[in-house]
Amino acid sequence: MRMVDLIEKKKNGEMLTAEEIQWMISGYTKGEIPDYQMSAMCMAIYFRGMTMDETITLTMAMRDSGDVLDLSGISGVKVDKHSTGGVGDKTTMALGPIVASLGVPVAKMSGRGLGHTGGTIDKLECFPGFSTSISEETFKDNVNNIGIAVAGQTANLAPADKKLYALRDTTACVNQKSLIASSIMSKKLASGSDAIVLDVKVGNGAFMENAEDARALAQIMVDIGKGAGKQTHALITNMDQPLGNAVGNSVEVLEAIETLKGNGPDDFLEVVYALGKHMLLLAGKADSEEDALAKMKETIANGNALQKLREFVAAQGGDPSYVDDPSKLPLAPVVVEVAAPCDGYVKTLEARPIGHASMLLGGGRATKESDIDLSVGCILRKKIGDEVKKGDSLCTIYAQTAEAAEAASKEVLGAYEFSDSFVAKPTMIYAELM
Amino acid sequence: MRMVDLIEKKKNGEMLTAEEIQWMISGYTKGEIPDYQMSAMCMAIYFRGMTMDETITLTMAMRDSGDVLDLSGISGVKVDKHSTGGVGDKTTMALGPIVASLGVPVAKMSGRGLGHTGGTIDKLECFPGFSTSISEETFKDNVNNIGIAVAGQTANLAPADKKLYALRDTTACVNQKSLIASSIMSKKLASGSDAIVLDVKVGNGAFMENAEDARALAQIMVDIGKGAGKQTHALITNMDQPLGNAVGNSVEVLEAIETLKGNGPDDFLEVVYALGKHMLLLAGKADSEEDALAKMKETIANGNALQKLREFVAAQGGDPSYVDDPSKLPLAPVVVEVAAPCDGYVKTLEARPIGHASMLLGGGRATKESDIDLSVGCILRKKIGDEVKKGDSLCTIYAQTAEAAEAASKEVLGAYEFSDSFVAKPTMIYAELM
Repeated sequence: MRMVDLIEKKKNGEMLTAEEIQWMISGYTKGEIPDYQMSAMCMAIYFRGMTMDETITLTMAMRDSGDVLDLSGISGVKVDKHSTGGVGDKTTMALGPIVASLGVPVAKMSGRGLGHTGGTIDKLECFPGFSTSISEETFKDNVNNIGIAVAGQTANLAPADKKLYALRDTTACVNQKSLIASSIMSKKLASGSDAIVLDVKVGNGAFMENAEDARALAQIMVDIGKGAGKQTHALITNMDQPLGNAVGNSVEVLEAIETLKGNGPDDFLEVVYALGKHMLLLAGKADSEEDALAKMKETIANGNALQKLREFVAAQGGDPSYVDDPSKLPLAPVVVEVAAPCDGYVKTLEARPIGHASMLLGGGRATKESDIDLSVGCILRKKIGDEVKKGDSLCTIYAQTAEAAEAASKEVLGAYEFSDSFVAKPTMIYAELM
Repeated sequence: MRMVDLIEKKKNGEMLTAEEIQWMISGYTKGEIPDYQMSAMCMAIYFRGMTMDETITLTMAMRDSGDVLDLSGISGVKVDKHSTGGVGDKTTMALGPIVASLGVPVAKMSGRGLGHTGGTIDKLECFPGFSTSISEETFKDNVNNIGIAVAGQTANLAPADKKLYALRDTTACVNQKSLIASSIMSKKLASGSDAIVLDVKVGNGAFMENAEDARALAQIMVDIGKGAGKQTHALITNMDQPLGNAVGNSVEVLEAIETLKGNGPDDFLEVVYALGKHMLLLAGKADSEEDALAKMKETIANGNALQKLREFVAAQGGDPSYVDDPSKLPLAPVVVEVAAPCDGYVKTLEARPIGHASMLLGGGRATKESDIDLSVGCILRKKIGDEVKKGDSLCTIYAQTAEAAEAASKEVLGAYEFSDSFVAKPTMIYAELM
């Protein structure tokens, strides 16, 4: 088999066989197929697309390019949750303890962030001592004993995807649905869970900017999951503005803790409940949607979810006192309020510039090697549909220097547009596929 | 400027600016832009195409990536001839001496062959002692003194094209007209001639398999030439069967010599005359097409063209006695006739399998490093439109071993199809663009 022939086939719009795709991914992982051939293939796939069969085969081949975790030692139906990423997405930190406290085993592999804020692992490290570098044994024991554990992704999880994603990123081949879907699902399938709930975000702050694309991507991922024998549900959720109010690291942890105390922002809670509902149903821990919702509200109200967060933080070496006194979380010294320039209603609050402001403050990574500052960030005071008076604070900025605060303020202000007339709050959940 | 942004632009169907194309080719030549980005760009160009402006800019950028020869020291209008390549194409060896003997300065850079037979340089080396490794001074002196010189391509002629072609070859990005045209024309323009005549071959033995594609490619090259300020003509010629009768190295030299002696095969002569006519007109050495044709026939009839070949061979260190006694040319010992399997007319004589037969005999290079055997080859005895009787020789094969002859015979026989009824000789010249 020759790679040039496979590129030619795909270029001409023909379908690749399972054998060809497996050979290609195996050869690419081993370095036998060079980047320059794989990038030409990715571009041909961009223009010609892949059938569902091809996409499933590609996903399986990437899953099998490295370790596939065996979580059978953990009892219960392990349900993994994955978000396609957005600004202010601290869902895992609140949702994990909620469903774990209701008996859903949460055995999660997470990554560090690249871009506007840190990833889940970075945020968890706001708790001094917290470590995600735990052994497979500790990981499984913790899930069995307290119901939740988060580990860093092992180096050898879907290495084909790691290599391919880096290549696509530098060759303008990121935005192709089969390639996106196989990238996400290969890692999810290698992570060993029994069922998967996907949060596909749509809007100006998300990878997918329109609902139609998001729905198509979600459907492909659901079909891949089913093709691999895993129950898979997907939600299409709104990312036209940041999720919740906090964007940063400490500030997002703080918001997650407040959510577990019953003080979560409405939009964030709506997404948490929607995802949690599917996780509970898939795990067999709720009888109906109503039952699932009632149970989640109860576990927050009675403190069980917050208690689960304490146990989880402590079990991985973190200081649980921060859960009870989140004011101990590090916050940068320069605090600046961004004032509303006029009266009116918030019509637009673009997520991208808010994410960018967080980057400018030092809260996100420009490259994989960058250090991030956990103490900087923004707390949005006004969101779409909110009424504002001129001079009201739109957003509180936590920065290390006045200059950084100034630059971030400009970005934040630029994200807002106002209307004289009433603006409705946006719909959060567009669709649920299962 | 970032290459990933240029790939994205082209992927989305936007036009690249001159500055962007120049930056890209310069960066790629210097190794600052990696192959994996350039191959993604080539694939995007395959799907999105390039405008004429982009194609001209690309060609100029590739021309300027290395040395651009200055032939102003040679008097007269230097007309270069280029063929897109086919089976049995020994045109340069006959046409060069013909037009040189009529006062057109022939200052040609040639390459070695890759594929079915050797290139012009390989064929010239059939004359013992002949060398194309001559200094630029000798090259120019020879053209000024005897009217003709052929040199090997300098290493630094359009190095961007060399690199890009190798990349396209391994990434299924060869067959894109703007890329083909810029590849050919960048070298032609860097070779320093004043005018260019292109022989774009079409048919089963050529790169372009249909006349429409060939005409489109030819038009692009003519437009590039004009855009670069060089008069450029293009002919679309037939390559549905090998050109002339000889396919190999010595056998092709022999046929070129016979052509200069007035014994050339009709189809070959027709192409030689058609190309020569344009060269003479562009060089101002003929007043009309009729005048050009008459002059070419005369220079063959009076022996001037053959004398020019002798001078040319001698001037580059070759033994001119081979011109007078071509039986001295090396011919392989095993001579096999391929017999016609039936009575009828030759309906088809595919060029590709004949070229492949020459490869099998050892007459072509499988890779750039291969040695080739100058003494092997085929001489076709029957071509399309010829009447045959069962048992007639279709082709004489010169091989080193009986096994090689056997394998080549099979290929040759497979190239023929016969008809019970009369078949017309094919048209050789489809179109002339200028």
